[in-house]
Amino acid sequence: MTRDPDDLTELKERPRTEAEDLEDLALEEDYALNPEFVMQVDDALDRGDTDRLRELLAALRPEDIADLMGFLSADDREELLPHLDPEVLAEVLPELDTEIREDILEHLPSATLARALGEMDSDDAADVVDDLEAEQRAEVLAAMPEVDRAAIETTLAYDEESAGRLMQREVVAAPQFWTVGQTIDHLRRESDELPELFFDVYVVDPSYKPVGACPVSHLLRTKRDVPLAQIMEQVTEIPVDMDQEEVAYIFDKYNLISAPVVEPGGRLVGQITVDDIVGVIAEETEEDILALAGVSDAGRDAGVWGIVRSRLPWLMINTLTAAFAVSVIGYFQDEIVKLAILAVLMPIVASLGGNAGTQTLAVAVRALASRELSAANAVRTISREMTVGVLNGAALALVTGGVLYLLFRDVRLALAFGLALVINLFVAALAGALIPLALDRVGRDPAVSSSVFVTFVTDFTGFFAFLGLAALILL
Amino acid sequence: MTRDPDDLTELKERPRTEAEDLEDLALEEDYALNPEFVMQVDDALDRGDTDRLRELLAALRPEDIADLMGFLSADDREELLPHLDPEVLAEVLPELDTEIREDILEHLPSATLARALGEMDSDDAADVVDDLEAEQRAEVLAAMPEVDRAAIETTLAYDEESAGRLMQREVVAAPQFWTVGQTIDHLRRESDELPELFFDVYVVDPSYKPVGACPVSHLLRTKRDVPLAQIMEQVTEIPVDMDQEEVAYIFDKYNLISAPVVEPGGRLVGQITVDDIVGVIAEETEEDILALAGVSDAGRDAGVWGIVRSRLPWLMINTLTAAFAVSVIGYFQDEIVKLAILAVLMPIVASLGGNAGTQTLAVAVRALASRELSAANAVRTISREMTVGVLNGAALALVTGGVLYLLFRDVRLALAFGLALVINLFVAALAGALIPLALDRVGRDPAVSSSVFVTFVTDFTGFFAFLGLAALILL
Repeated sequence: MTRDPDDLTELKERPRTEAEDLEDLALEEDYALNPEFVMQVDDALDRGDTDRLRELLAALRPEDIADLMGFLSADDREELLPHLDPEVLAEVLPELDTEIREDILEHLPSATLARALGEMDSDDAADVVDDLEAEQRAEVLAAMPEVDRAAIETTLAYDEESAGRLMQREVVAAPQFWTVGQTIDHLRRESDELPELFFDVYVVDPSYKPVGACPVSHLLRTKRDVPLAQIMEQVTEIPVDMDQEEVAYIFDKYNLISAPVVEPGGRLVGQITVDDIVGVIAEETEEDILALAGVSDAGRDAGVWGIVRSRLPWLMINTLTAAFAVSVIGYFQDEIVKLAILAVLMPIVASLGGNAGTQTLAVAVRALASRELSAANAVRTISREMTVGVLNGAALALVTGGVLYLLFRDVRLALAFGLALVINLFVAALAGALIPLALDRVGRDPAVSSSVFVTFVTDFTGFFAFLGLAALILL
Repeated sequence: MTRDPDDLTELKERPRTEAEDLEDLALEEDYALNPEFVMQVDDALDRGDTDRLRELLAALRPEDIADLMGFLSADDREELLPHLDPEVLAEVLPELDTEIREDILEHLPSATLARALGEMDSDDAADVVDDLEAEQRAEVLAAMPEVDRAAIETTLAYDEESAGRLMQREVVAAPQFWTVGQTIDHLRRESDELPELFFDVYVVDPSYKPVGACPVSHLLRTKRDVPLAQIMEQVTEIPVDMDQEEVAYIFDKYNLISAPVVEPGGRLVGQITVDDIVGVIAEETEEDILALAGVSDAGRDAGVWGIVRSRLPWLMINTLTAAFAVSVIGYFQDEIVKLAILAVLMPIVASLGGNAGTQTLAVAVRALASRELSAANAVRTISREMTVGVLNGAALALVTGGVLYLLFRDVRLALAFGLALVINLFVAALAGALIPLALDRVGRDPAVSSSVFVTFVTDFTGFFAFLGLAALILL
C-alpha cells in the first residue's frame, strides 16, 4: 500500500513538533532566554507540575539553565534543583554567577554535589569547591574518589587569579620522535583518558618540557609517516603563577587557541584553552568599568546589603574629597554674597573639568590595560592629552564666554569664566593621564580609585580657579 | 681527536646566543615590548643602520612588530616599512590599530600591498581593503588575482559589524555518510586547499546546510570506520547578518570554539572562530567604557584633532545640560546671599548624587550587555536599586548631617542637607537604572549618552532639593 505524499510529510514533521516548539519558545532570536518561557517555568514551579517542569528544562542547554537561575527567585531556584540530573548540574554549576552559585551550593546534598564534581574538568571543579563553606567542603571532598580529590586540592593550592587555577590538568603530549601516525594511533588507544576537547598536541622532550605544539588540524591533514618534529610550531609557555589578566593579554595578542602551562622548572603541568580566556577578558574589562564607576567587586546578583557594601565606602570617600574641594568655596563667601551669579556658574566649571578628566582617565586606563601605554610612550601621551585639554578648554571658553557676555554684558565675568575653564581642562587632562600612570607604576590597579582622585582635583581646581579669578578681576 | 667537554658546551650554546639574546631583550616577562628594545630600534632607524634593523625585527613575532609600530613616530614607521617582507606584512597589518594602519597603508606601494593581501584570510584582507581610500583601493584590487578580489568584495558587501564581515569563507565540510577514515583521507588529499587552522569539520546535508559538527580532536580519537553522523554534535548556526556583539555573546555563553555561518536559506557560507571573538569582546567592552566616560569612538592613537573631535561634542552637550541644571540655582540667589554656606554645601549634594547614579548606571549597562538584565527581571532590579539608593542616602545623611550639626550647631541646616541627600540618591538610583533600560528598549546603545542624562538629573535634583528644602526649613 502506497502512502499519500502529504501523509508522509506530516509523518516526517510531527515527531519534531512538541520538543522543538518548546526549544523555539525557550530562546529569543539572539539566544537570550524568552521572558515568556521564564514565566512558564515560574508557573510550573508554582503549580508543582513536575512533568511540565522536566519538559521545559529538557528544552534548554546547560548554559540556558544557568541563565534561567538568574531570572528565578531564590525559593524557585531551590525548588528547581532536585529536577536537575548530576550530569546536567555538572555543566550548569560552572556557568552560574558566583552569588547564585553560592546560594545553590548551600542547598545541594553533599552526595549529589560530589557526583556532579566528578563529571567536571579539574579547573571547574576546583572553582566550585572553592565556593563551599569549610564544613560542606570537607563533606563533599570526603565523598569523592581519592584521585579527583587530589586534583582539586592541587588546583586550589594555586593563587586565585593565576594560570594554575585557570588551567586544566588534562593535556595531550607526545615525544618529539613520534610520527603523525603513531600519535593518532596513541590517541585512538587512549581515547577514554583524553580531555573532552583539545586543540593542540604538545611535543615534549624527555624531561616533559614542551618544545613545540601541533595544532590538531595539522595532524589531520598530514601524512602518517611525517615526524611531529617536522610539523610542530613554536609554543608560548605560560608560567603556572602568571596572573590571569596577563594570560588573557598573551592569548589576545598572539591569537592563541591553547597554550601549555609550565612549572618553574619548565615541566608541562597543564593547559589553558581560549574558552577560559573569553571569560577572563569579559571579567577583567567588567571589573575596570565598575571600578571606574566606583563600584567594588560584588556579584551583580548580590542582595541589597551586598550592593550597599560594594558602593557605600566609595560614596563615603567621595563625601570626604567633596568636602575638601568645596572648603575652598568657604574662602570666597564674601565674593559670593556680593555677586550671587558666581555660585550659579561655579558648578559648571567644576563639572566640565570632571567630565574632561573622566574622558582622559577612561582612555588611559584602557590603554594601560592593553599595554598600549607604557614608559616608552608615556611622555608623548601625556603631552598630547594636555594639548587636547587646552584646545577643548579654549573651545568651551569661547562658546560659554560668548554666551555669558551676551547675557550679562560683563567682559570681566566672561573672561574669568573662560580662563577658569581652560585652566581646569588643562589640569583635568594632566590628572586624568598622570594619576592612572602613577597608580600603575606603584603596582596598584589604575582603574580602582583613580576617579576619586581625578574628580577631587577637578572640583578643587574648578572652584578655586573660577572664584579666585573672579575675586582678582571682578571685585 | 677528542674535544674538551667545556668546548662542547660552548659550541652547543654559542649559536643560540646572538639571536636569542635579542629575543630575550625584545619582550619583558609579561610579553610587553621592552622600552629599551624600542629605543634600539629608534636608534637603528636614526643611524640608518639597515643590518641592525633587520636583526632587531627578526627577533619579533608579527604581533610584536604591530605593537612596535604603536611606539614609533609616524616618520619612523614609514622608514621601517620597506624592511618588512610581504609575508610578515600580511601578519602585521591585521594586528595594527586602525589609525596606525590607515597611516601605514597610505605609504605602501599598491603592488606590495596586493601581495600581502594575497597571503591573508578573507576576513583580514577585507578589513584592510576597507581602510583604503577609493583610489588606492581600486589600484590594489586591480593588482590582485580575480579569485582573491572576488572574495574580498563579497565580504565587504556585508555590514561592517556583522557575522558576514567577521567570518572567514574557508571552511571544512563533509557529508553525513562519510566515515572518520574517509574524512581524514580527504583532508590529507586536499591539504593545500584547507584553511590554515580549523577546529570543527561541519557535517552538511545535500543542500549544504549544516546538520552537525565534529570537533577535530574527536576525529583524531575515533576509529576510522565510525560514521561522522555517529560522533557529530549539535551546531549553533550564526546567521550571516547577525551583529558581532550578539555573535560574541553566543560564543561566550556556549563556550564555542568555532561556529558555522549560514545564509538566510540555511546554506553554509563560512565560519567564525573564537580568536576573532576575543577581539570583538575586548572591542565591545572597551566601547562601553569609553562611551560611559563620554568619549566617542576614535582610535586611541588618533592625532590631537581626532581626539578633540571625539570628546568636544560630549563636553558641549555637558555644558548645555550643566547650564540647565545650574539655572535652578538662579532662583535661589536670594537665599544664597542670605546664607552663603548654602553655596558651599550644594555641590556636595549634586556630586554625591552623580557618583551614586554613575554606580547604578555602570552596573545596569554591563547587565544589559551580558543579557542579565531584561524585561524578565527589570522591575526587580529597579526596585532593588531604589532600596539601595535610599539606604546609601540615609547612611550618608546620618554621617554628614551629624558633622554639619557639630560644625554649625544648626539642626535645620543638617536636616535640609540630609533630606536632600536621601532624595537625590533615590532619584540617582532610579535614573541610573531607568535611563539605560529605556535607551535599550528603543534600540539605542545604553552606554552612549546615558551618563549625560543621569548627571543632568542628579545635578538638577541635588541643587533643587537642597536649596528648596533650605528655603522651606531655614529661611
